Amino acid sequence: MTHRLPSYEGVLDAARQIEGVAVRTPLIESPALNARLGGRVLMKAETLQRAGAFKFRGAYNRISRLDEDERRRGVVAFSSGNHAQGVAAAARLVGTPAIIVMPADSPAVKVEGVRSFGGEVRFYDRWSESREAIGAAIAEERGSVLVPPFDDPFVIEGQGTTALELLEQTPLLGGGAIDQLLCGASGGGLIAGINLVMAERSSETRVTVVEPEAFDDTARSLAAGARVGHPQGAPSICDALMAPTPGELTFPINRRCAGALTVSDAEVAEAVAFAFRQLKLVVEPGGAVGLAALLSGKAEAKDRTTVVVLSGGNVDPSLFAAIIEGRFGG
Amino acid sequence: MTHRLPSYEGVLDAARQIEGVAVRTPLIESPALNARLGGRVLMKAETLQRAGAFKFRGAYNRISRLDEDERRRGVVAFSSGNHAQGVAAAARLVGTPAIIVMPADSPAVKVEGVRSFGGEVRFYDRWSESREAIGAAIAEERGSVLVPPFDDPFVIEGQGTTALELLEQTPLLGGGAIDQLLCGASGGGLIAGINLVMAERSSETRVTVVEPEAFDDTARSLAAGARVGHPQGAPSICDALMAPTPGELTFPINRRCAGALTVSDAEVAEAVAFAFRQLKLVVEPGGAVGLAALLSGKAEAKDRTTVVVLSGGNVDPSLFAAIIEGRFGG
Repeated sequence: MTHRLPSYEGVLDAARQIEGVAVRTPLIESPALNARLGGRVLMKAETLQRAGAFKFRGAYNRISRLDEDERRRGVVAFSSGNHAQGVAAAARLVGTPAIIVMPADSPAVKVEGVRSFGGEVRFYDRWSESREAIGAAIAEERGSVLVPPFDDPFVIEGQGTTALELLEQTPLLGGGAIDQLLCGASGGGLIAGINLVMAERSSETRVTVVEPEAFDDTARSLAAGARVGHPQGAPSICDALMAPTPGELTFPINRRCAGALTVSDAEVAEAVAFAFRQLKLVVEPGGAVGLAALLSGKAEAKDRTTVVVLSGGNVDPSLFAAIIEGRFGG
Repeated sequence: MTHRLPSYEGVLDAARQIEGVAVRTPLIESPALNARLGGRVLMKAETLQRAGAFKFRGAYNRISRLDEDERRRGVVAFSSGNHAQGVAAAARLVGTPAIIVMPADSPAVKVEGVRSFGGEVRFYDRWSESREAIGAAIAEERGSVLVPPFDDPFVIEGQGTTALELLEQTPLLGGGAIDQLLCGASGGGLIAGINLVMAERSSETRVTVVEPEAFDDTARSLAAGARVGHPQGAPSICDALMAPTPGELTFPINRRCAGALTVSDAEVAEAVAFAFRQLKLVVEPGGAVGLAALLSGKAEAKDRTTVVVLSGGNVDPSLFAAIIEGRFGG
């Protein structure tokens, strides 16, 4: 465990570390979406990243730095699914074994994804067990290195490379200043990495966090000025965004967010269906919260340039089918 | 109707004509696909084009050149659906009315697409009526300009801009020579435009046409050395690729193809499902024939660089749901 704080310089270093290994995902503009919203929207398609989500960036930035002895002992991670797959994919590339602690109710597609990258899966109960404790126990028992889903400087800095790329890509699309950036948050690692970059390079951009209604811990924490949780027990189709509280390392960075929004499951399902129909992109519910905020009108897009991160595309076929056929009762 | 032949110079002119209006679609590389095939595959995602298919390029290149008088009278087009939407979208941008003659069994999503762009739809029976005759009659009656789906120099040259873009994008991905390029064909407008460009700029690339088994008229014509049709009556899920014979203008150009392949409905369905699961892209059956040729092993991808055009993404939700859930009985 490193005890330094994540930094913008660390993101620059992460970009060098993942170059040629992570996918430089496209920044996509849709005339149909622009016309509907009356503004300009640029979508960073992390759905096209290795293992189908931004998580590979942070995982590879951490795991590729293991020394030889650590590589022999392997890594352990706890995750709702996308970090799980990112860690398994990075571990395979680095040549180190990975054990992944996943909620028993993880989408099958994510469990299969971990196994397809050679990762070993250990299930736990999301509501009664502590994944942190289970992960720590395995790490101690095997001497493996724990790769946290967000509270780690290398992980946060790896995720921040998403923002470096989009700042390089915006001018290629003829774009000027980015007025706002919408990004989902669970533990807040991605948006923290993004905030590190935007503070340095595009401080005029309003970075807004978007969460599922039942998992609005970042919004509550921003309002309270301190890390607090959300009332537990309500479900969400956004399986990727169900962390109970913001991270210790991520929250101090994310306090610079200009705003916080929440979206309902029905709004998220509508965004997933819109992405299928109009954008021809497969976006998972948790990856579509920013788009949902735009389509629902909760985030204003008119007469401005908005960047929205489509953070992942790992969705079970049965749920996706129900959503695009209008059979989802969210 | 223009009587000149399509040319490489015409493609360069088309690129200037559509610049800033058509989407410069990304060239996408998937480490998962590369690993599976043991080679390098670059996918030109025309699924992300305006109106969800490459067809907008040719339609806009033709319609934006109408004079004032022609714009008042409007355009007419016959199409299985993607050209229909491309013409309707281009006509709206240019400010001219569009009547589209479509098969009565067109996917609902394509009919809705045409209407959403303000196009007027006239249905015909695919097996008993001639769409060419109906289109010509409307053109005569209203004085509208007919925008053919493929047999028009401006249309072919517009489609060819796809190849200009991918040649500019390949070096950005660190790529060297393109060993082969796989592209579907119905009337052959897209692959003809591509052939014009590759002959001039990348003559070492083997351009291979891919067709549905039951609509292999280009393969038969290449073998016969003359335009011939296919036995009629068999169905295909590739609604976009059901032209009866190669075009008069396209076939002479497409004779330079290095090869021809056919794929079954089951192979196409597997490619659509793979694109959903692994690539996170929505590809319609007719847009996935090149990918199907790769995944089925009919086109060899090992130890070489292949470009495959994902030509469209307009698929009805019910068919897409059946395919991704494994309920398609193709």
